[in-house]
Amino acid sequence: MQLTVTPLGTQSTSVGEYVAEFQKVLQQLNIPHTLTDMGTILEGSAEELLKTALTIHELPFNKGAKRVVTQIVMDDRRDKKISLGDKVASVQARLK
Amino acid sequence: MQLTVTPLGTQSTSVGEYVAEFQKVLQQLNIPHTLTDMGTILEGSAEELLKTALTIHELPFNKGAKRVVTQIVMDDRRDKKISLGDKVASVQARLK
Amino acid sequence: MQLTVTPLGTQSTSVGEYVAEFQKVLQQLNIPHTLTDMGTILEGSAEELLKTALTIHELPFNKGAKRVVTQIVMDDRRDKKISLGDKVASVQARLK
Amino acid sequence: MQLTVTPLGTQSTSVGEYVAEFQKVLQQLNIPHTLTDMGTILEGSAEELLKTALTIHELPFNKGAKRVVTQIVMDDRRDKKISLGDKVASVQARLK
Repeated sequence: MQLTVTPLGTQSTSVGEYVAEFQKVLQQLNIPHTLTDMGTILEGSAEELLKTALTIHELPFNKGAKRVVTQIVMDDRRDKKISLGDKVASVQARLK
Repeated sequence: MQLTVTPLGTQSTSVGEYVAEFQKVLQQLNIPHTLTDMGTILEGSAEELLKTALTIHELPFNKGAKRVVTQIVMDDRRDKKISLGDKVASVQARLK
Repeated sequence: MQLTVTPLGTQSTSVGEYVAEFQKVLQQLNIPHTLTDMGTILEGSAEELLKTALTIHELPFNKGAKRVVTQIVMDDRRDKKISLGDKVASVQARLK
Repeated sequence: MQLTVTPLGTQSTSVGEYVAEFQKVLQQLNIPHTLTDMGTILEGSAEELLKTALTIHELPFNKGAKRVVTQIVMDDRRDKKISLGDKVASVQARLK
């Protein structure tokens, strides 16, 4: 799952502060994750990750944001087990 | 919230069958919703809608899909109450 | 194609002003479009619409925005001609 | 910019073949890019990257796909120059 949380109506163009808190919460929850320049990629079941997304979505409101746009892309494949990094490794193997 | 569910690895280019079932489930759950050409827009609390998204995400698996990509955009504004159609009406008022 | 343009680092939680200007530009360009609560749906060739997306993406910068996040989803089907409203009509026919 | 290209109506659940070709084209075009498990992140001007997106979007059609869904997220910040990896590094600095 890729998760991106954007607070609107803040005076700053930077969202790094929110993203840092978000990473700390994922560590506390023990959810495997990778931060990219465009979002955070999480590994787990659909149910567990949507619950996590709800927790993360609330964080900027707790810091005073009045509007938050959260984007979630769940790529859920049940014909084989896929972990973080597997899709990148599979493409890189084809490029050799 | 906008919700889009795409089954992959199906032989057909059409996803209309899944989308029709999806609408029926939303009616049964009594969730206010609008179907557009690019997804379904739902109204409710973040918690209720993420739970609904999980239900909808499971539908294609029940019909034999092996990979499903589900996209969720939650636009959650807490400085004022917004219902389906309000944002469109507000823009149209500006265009007059 | 669905197009959503979000200026960041503005003091207001409302983006209606930008969206209204966006609709005016689409009318001037004569691009068929439908406004929804979660974005604007446009009809045309991939090439024409990406050119339009670039024009629309520049609008908030011209009004002083310093950071703009633009989301584009192109659903391009070449096995049959699809126009605005066709996908919704096809699902509604299945629901009867 | 993050770019994700999904061919629909293919018999396989895997899109790795398309993604590998996509990476080769980016190398030929000399566009700085990073592959993640959920898409490809590209660096450049809005104009250059939308042109590249159009090229990449055509690739699956050339291989016989009849429907392609391409998602583009442009995060365009003009108050400071940002390169691939800068946003991740900035968050990691906050986590120390």
